[in-house]
Amino acid sequence: MALRGIHHVGLAVADLDEAIATYERLFDARVEYRAHVSGEAVEAAFLRIGEDRVELLAPTGSDSPVGRFLVNRGPGMHHVAYEADDLVATLGELAAAGAELVEDTPRRGLGGLQVAFVHPDAVHGVLTEVVSSG
Amino acid sequence: MALRGIHHVGLAVADLDEAIATYERLFDARVEYRAHVSGEAVEAAFLRIGEDRVELLAPTGSDSPVGRFLVNRGPGMHHVAYEADDLVATLGELAAAGAELVEDTPRRGLGGLQVAFVHPDAVHGVLTEVVSSG
Repeated sequence: MALRGIHHVGLAVADLDEAIATYERLFDARVEYRAHVSGEAVEAAFLRIGEDRVELLAPTGSDSPVGRFLVNRGPGMHHVAYEADDLVATLGELAAAGAELVEDTPRRGLGGLQVAFVHPDAVHGVLTEVVSSG
Repeated sequence: MALRGIHHVGLAVADLDEAIATYERLFDARVEYRAHVSGEAVEAAFLRIGEDRVELLAPTGSDSPVGRFLVNRGPGMHHVAYEADDLVATLGELAAAGAELVEDTPRRGLGGLQVAFVHPDAVHGVLTEVVSSG
């Protein structure tokens, strides 16, 4: 298991422009990447805050995972993403350790990352993502 | 505003020992500091994951902020903490920017940190902490 650390913290918001403006104003955040991820019905942005990063996620419809999250729980913390050196090996190690994976194999995420999610039931209620840039 | 980045992500858990064991097993986490914070009725631990850090928070009673959080929302993500170079100056800047602060002045947190919280209503539903080591 070689995790470099936290790649980003994912935050569900109702309005992406408004949330970006808040993070710029309060925390001097800088937009690193922004895109519409049509497969997940979200508009998303990576924001740098100092050396680190948050991901703001706004649903483009209520019938999507992030849309349902907002309806059920309101805006707030959505997931934690760790960066792996070798994502495929890390997913194998997580599965071998008994963690239920949402995806067994990586898929393409925001900004060209390779990503996969671990089920929150495996991590004490925390939706956990593992990502790699390669 | 000089934020260095994310100091830690705070996660509410029902059982601290069990959660530490999960993070050690799945993510190679290493316990950095652990203490009973009697003023907040929590047992808490900082865990290093790679270069970064999560804080696990387990309530020692249901009549406490973390205890009520667990009852109302279940275990999961609780707060994001950013590290400031100058916490007092940062709190002044946040207040001047119109952010509602839970604490106007820093108090002592886990591991001897100086900490203060920003109200989640000011940050799109995210309970946000600012910390400094000084």
